[in-house]
Amino acid sequence: MNAIEVNVKNGYKVIVDNGIFDKIPEYALTLADYTTVTIVSDSNVAPLYIERLKKGFLRANKRVLTYVIEAGEQSKNLSNYAAILSFLANNDFKRKDLLVALGGGVVGDLTGFVASTYHRGVDFIQVPTTLLAGIDSSVGGKTAVDIKEGKNLVGAFYQPKGVFFDIETLNTLPEKEMINGFGELVKYGILMGGTLWKNLLSDNLSLENCIADSIRYKAEIVEKDEFDNGVRALLNLGHTLAHSVENLSGYTVPHGLAVGYGIRRIAKACKNNGLLQNSEYEQIINVLDKFSLTYIAPFSDNALIRASVKDKKAFADSINIIVINAIGNCSIQKFKLDKLGEFFND
Amino acid sequence: MNAIEVNVKNGYKVIVDNGIFDKIPEYALTLADYTTVTIVSDSNVAPLYIERLKKGFLRANKRVLTYVIEAGEQSKNLSNYAAILSFLANNDFKRKDLLVALGGGVVGDLTGFVASTYHRGVDFIQVPTTLLAGIDSSVGGKTAVDIKEGKNLVGAFYQPKGVFFDIETLNTLPEKEMINGFGELVKYGILMGGTLWKNLLSDNLSLENCIADSIRYKAEIVEKDEFDNGVRALLNLGHTLAHSVENLSGYTVPHGLAVGYGIRRIAKACKNNGLLQNSEYEQIINVLDKFSLTYIAPFSDNALIRASVKDKKAFADSINIIVINAIGNCSIQKFKLDKLGEFFND
Repeated sequence: MNAIEVNVKNGYKVIVDNGIFDKIPEYALTLADYTTVTIVSDSNVAPLYIERLKKGFLRANKRVLTYVIEAGEQSKNLSNYAAILSFLANNDFKRKDLLVALGGGVVGDLTGFVASTYHRGVDFIQVPTTLLAGIDSSVGGKTAVDIKEGKNLVGAFYQPKGVFFDIETLNTLPEKEMINGFGELVKYGILMGGTLWKNLLSDNLSLENCIADSIRYKAEIVEKDEFDNGVRALLNLGHTLAHSVENLSGYTVPHGLAVGYGIRRIAKACKNNGLLQNSEYEQIINVLDKFSLTYIAPFSDNALIRASVKDKKAFADSINIIVINAIGNCSIQKFKLDKLGEFFND
Repeated sequence: MNAIEVNVKNGYKVIVDNGIFDKIPEYALTLADYTTVTIVSDSNVAPLYIERLKKGFLRANKRVLTYVIEAGEQSKNLSNYAAILSFLANNDFKRKDLLVALGGGVVGDLTGFVASTYHRGVDFIQVPTTLLAGIDSSVGGKTAVDIKEGKNLVGAFYQPKGVFFDIETLNTLPEKEMINGFGELVKYGILMGGTLWKNLLSDNLSLENCIADSIRYKAEIVEKDEFDNGVRALLNLGHTLAHSVENLSGYTVPHGLAVGYGIRRIAKACKNNGLLQNSEYEQIINVLDKFSLTYIAPFSDNALIRASVKDKKAFADSINIIVINAIGNCSIQKFKLDKLGEFFND
């Protein structure tokens, strides 16, 4: 079992293992003496896992409520947010009770935002059931909803009390959702290098080790910069172009594929501009291909750059881009917007 | 000038003085180099003060946006919250820009909640224009909106970057709004005792000193217990019954009057139960009368207690009540619900 500490104020553990699902209620109930537990999930995940999770809490004589949203990014909105808040209030859910996010990033982000604001903050845990949520969105305390003006534009930094990731749940994950997670996994590999990158290159990789390494890397970054004012920006490797692609495609391109494309482009730009050795560039392309991250966006560089300015990470006349100096050595570089086209130019 | 430090993480100053209004933009712009300033106000306060405040920011070459909500508690809702978020996004308001809450508690709580969640947190300052907001709601970082299931049920702990209270703005405050503030002022007097209580007893009181003392007392409590898990509960003196009165009256009784009634009842109960000396009890009643806090609620004790259980501060079978042992010496006492009627019984 991997028990990874996230040492922020009110720190917590990320438990990653095979076959721990039925023990999650027991783990969660060591955190505090909750009276009521509300499990939020979505229409894909609930039929597979919600009763199993509920059972464990019932066995411990807890009152259990469930709330199921429709699966998909379109559910991560203020109207579901308000509906869950009312549901909790109407069902006498108290400040000292526990919220559980069971599912992928949408459920985790939305439930986390509810937890951060209901009674100005109640405890919640993350039970990710997708690779993307397990290695990325469930750890680090970024919660959010989308508004029509932009994705993740409204939210809070609010840490869970624990993250419980049973890797066996990935057995029920559709392949395209696995690939979605691979985009972030390759990102962590390039950022961290070392054992994680070797594992990704290997013909005989251990997914569990890859996951644990990614979370360990993310936990370290979050500890250094919980509120995203500095090094946490490294986690945006590949994300500036990815957000543009998602935006221009009307969010039809899955996040992981968009990140894969973003990494592909930034790796090439870093090679072309003399930052990254050719041999490492080729490793990156090989790993992207190996993990089916082969999506190529049909948008011009001009359009991608224009879209990135509208992204929340952009400032007036310049933008921070994460560049790859080597595998395991990335850095934040500020670009004037008019230089960015040049940088990406083949 | 009183410059009171609130020494929490990311601490800030509360500036209290006469005639500082036109200097507020200058003070605020020492906090950071903002590009855009958005002033949120209400339909009562905006006609009096918004242009004056705007002018100062314009003089400093800042881009200024204004957003005016309808005056009144009914505006403190999720629909105005969502509307302001969209307004900001549509007007290119960025993560490093500044929100200004100009008005009373409704504007402050709502704007603070927007600030805490837009891009997961942007800077905001409080410019209170009511006594209630100036001595109480603008300091301490409690932000909130109401939902139909309850007042302040949704919100965040999120500190402002500064509070700028020009006492001269109280000259435009309707008398009933002054009395509303007196409820909290008397509360602070009983909690703090000392100079503040003497001032309240005096025929020749200095309102500025009363205000500064109240804020100083609140700042100390907030420093000790920012997230309301302990001593901050002292600030609920008189509030358990007050919330019940507000609730049972459909929020037609102003907060300050309800708090005045709550204090009157708790003082009497403390005297009757041998906690509080008769002479101090009489002082309290005299001060309440002097400040026109003479409202008597037409609800039975039974109804009030039943309503308090539904309040968010109540737990299953017991409730924390702030008792007055002496002026300047209050404490948190847990009551079984079935003992509460006895305690309040004349």
